[in-house]
Amino acid sequence: MEKIVIKNGNIVTMAGFSHGPQKGEEFGKLGLIEDGAIVISDGVIEEVGPTKDIEIPNGAKVFDVKGRLVTPGLIDPHTHLAHFGSREKEYTWRIEGMPYIEILKNGGGILETVRQNRIASEGEIFNQSLENLSRMISFGVTTVESKSGYGLDWETELKQLKTNKRLEQETNIDVVSTFLGAHAIPTEFKEDPEEFVQKVIEMLPKAKEYATYCDVFCEEGVFTPDQSERILLEAKKLGYKVKLHADEIVATGGAQLAAKLGADSADHLLCVDDEGMNMMAEKEVVAVLLPGTSFNLMSDKYAPAQSMIEKQVPIALATDFNPGSCPTENPQLVMTLACLNLKLTPSQALAAFTINAAHSVGMGEKVGSIEEGKQGDVVVFDCPNVDYIPYRFGINHTHSVFKKGKLIWQK
Amino acid sequence: MEKIVIKNGNIVTMAGFSHGPQKGEEFGKLGLIEDGAIVISDGVIEEVGPTKDIEIPNGAKVFDVKGRLVTPGLIDPHTHLAHFGSREKEYTWRIEGMPYIEILKNGGGILETVRQNRIASEGEIFNQSLENLSRMISFGVTTVESKSGYGLDWETELKQLKTNKRLEQETNIDVVSTFLGAHAIPTEFKEDPEEFVQKVIEMLPKAKEYATYCDVFCEEGVFTPDQSERILLEAKKLGYKVKLHADEIVATGGAQLAAKLGADSADHLLCVDDEGMNMMAEKEVVAVLLPGTSFNLMSDKYAPAQSMIEKQVPIALATDFNPGSCPTENPQLVMTLACLNLKLTPSQALAAFTINAAHSVGMGEKVGSIEEGKQGDVVVFDCPNVDYIPYRFGINHTHSVFKKGKLIWQK
Ligand SMILES: [Zn+2]
Ligand SMILES: [Zn+2]
Repeated sequence: MEKIVIKNGNIVTMAGFSHGPQKGEEFGKLGLIEDGAIVISDGVIEEVGPTKDIEIPNGAKVFDVKGRLVTPGLIDPHTHLAHFGSREKEYTWRIEGMPYIEILKNGGGILETVRQNRIASEGEIFNQSLENLSRMISFGVTTVESKSGYGLDWETELKQLKTNKRLEQETNIDVVSTFLGAHAIPTEFKEDPEEFVQKVIEMLPKAKEYATYCDVFCEEGVFTPDQSERILLEAKKLGYKVKLHADEIVATGGAQLAAKLGADSADHLLCVDDEGMNMMAEKEVVAVLLPGTSFNLMSDKYAPAQSMIEKQVPIALATDFNPGSCPTENPQLVMTLACLNLKLTPSQALAAFTINAAHSVGMGEKVGSIEEGKQGDVVVFDCPNVDYIPYRFGINHTHSVFKKGKLIWQK
Repeated sequence: MEKIVIKNGNIVTMAGFSHGPQKGEEFGKLGLIEDGAIVISDGVIEEVGPTKDIEIPNGAKVFDVKGRLVTPGLIDPHTHLAHFGSREKEYTWRIEGMPYIEILKNGGGILETVRQNRIASEGEIFNQSLENLSRMISFGVTTVESKSGYGLDWETELKQLKTNKRLEQETNIDVVSTFLGAHAIPTEFKEDPEEFVQKVIEMLPKAKEYATYCDVFCEEGVFTPDQSERILLEAKKLGYKVKLHADEIVATGGAQLAAKLGADSADHLLCVDDEGMNMMAEKEVVAVLLPGTSFNLMSDKYAPAQSMIEKQVPIALATDFNPGSCPTENPQLVMTLACLNLKLTPSQALAAFTINAAHSVGMGEKVGSIEEGKQGDVVVFDCPNVDYIPYRFGINHTHSVFKKGKLIWQK
């Protein structure tokens, strides 16, 4: 038995409120244990309580965190981590106000990332993704969702999906792998999107070996609600769990579709309407909000988080890390953006990156809070309290990161 | 003679355009040397050119930076670095929309920082400031301006000014020390601001030993242009250089005053008018813009950077690092904010944090570009090009930092 004890922490457990995600008035409840300790045994949390009440097991490795803030490992539930290349070339174009359609014409946009990934080897994709995952870990992330979708052909999608698997094997991080073959219409199918939908449906059985979730970019000019539904129904038959990129630019009924399909999450939701939110609340579909994307796209449109809280829609946050609309791995900065632009409190932002994020990727029973029986995924922050994380923005507050009871990163 | 060579860099020299700050069409010129090398001898740049043309001196220490981006050390020309304490307590109040006047009543705002610093010992102020300066260095900063102004009484102002001196002595960083006794009206003078102006004028001779600049917060409800002028004229007589917090919330004529007084910079300038900009252009007063502050205050008002460029006002950028309106030390993130919100190009943003920042703190002859005869202040970034810095936001790109030819920080 390998035992570790993290002691003298200002522990935010996020535990003990309900078995689902936090919502409504509960949202942002921290379950604080001042001067607390955590005992982790063979990677699983065995005991949590005030330091003075915890008996340190014989032979345990003890980490005295000296009053620092201790939280569940962060969970980033919406990323496009597994990719190669970058798109700084179009950054100046965007700043100058070039419309996206022009950027595409000039060799930018998502199809440029598709081009870069089709050319890249599996090794190149893996190496870059590993470097970026390491950066995520340095920010306190211990579980990450990672989507394919920069291939739009089987060969390239497979390189991304294999990367997800390998990242999990080689880092010990939980990587929730999502097949997003329906991320965009590739150039070669632009005259016949329906044929591409068929192609995606054909990829589903092969992708199943590598992916837990199936996701679709449901948006005007990309995949219609009808096409999205056909893909996701087929996916469900094959045993996938589902989620959706929904209502980002136009309200197309993506939220409603997510509720209808029993999706674990609907993501983006800048334009979601009341009906969509009510249906999500009823079915406990988690709203995964991505304020970093609005920020980076210089939009002043953000998801209606306050209405969601009122309507009891559970909220998670994610970076949306990708080389186009949100090239950052930093969840702490996304917390700041969520406070400033979605008006979440720092405690709500932390709940959104832990317990609620866990539920949005179907991991609510395993991670997201510091409770007996859950995985020993813990972050120590060089902060006196939760508010300090988003308040002192633009710096990395992580002091140390434990995954399944192992110290995997240290300042 | 201690010699070092930094070789195989993608060097942005910022050199050779003019002897003043960059402005108009020149603004953002990089002076790129692809695959270049720099020879630094006893802390001073001796030679810069293509690696293949540089002869490596005998006994030189050689750093092969393998194609990474190499820039002049960053200069943060407007900070309130020397302080103790923090104000996360009021973060939630601000998010919820509490007006500043209410925040002050509830024990927040600048007067709370004044309270914390009056109580703090010189050692406490120094230790926290040193920690924060170390963070600045990790972001590539090699020269920093640091203001007093959280005492508003001589005893506490002195603790801050002594901290500036000691930071410079103990870190080898150039710390440009600024006396900002006129930062706010302290509670004990709120019925008689004019008496406080006299107090500040009385502090000037004593502060001169520790400060190069004198600065005043010229703003409606704080110090009037007339009061600001009297303080700064007195300061000039004593040999101070001058700068101004100007036109942040209302156009009070701060920019005009800065031009009239021959200030090296006017800072903030969100509300500057055309006359103010024209006068600044004529007198080459550098506009120090602080987009991090607008961002953190959830304002959509930013300084009119594009008009400034058009009118040939030189632009610098700074973090404004302080515990209230901008609690970040991260100039790379401020570059991102400048690109997204001021519509600077990444190259302009870099010029604003190097050569133009140098001129805004009177150090244009010594730092801010990689040229023979200047100090060996150099940053190596883990980036392929300048655009990559603001594009990949929220992460620290610094690979290594050299100050006066010495490696002082490494990833
Ligand atoms: Zn996405
Ligand atoms: Zn200031």
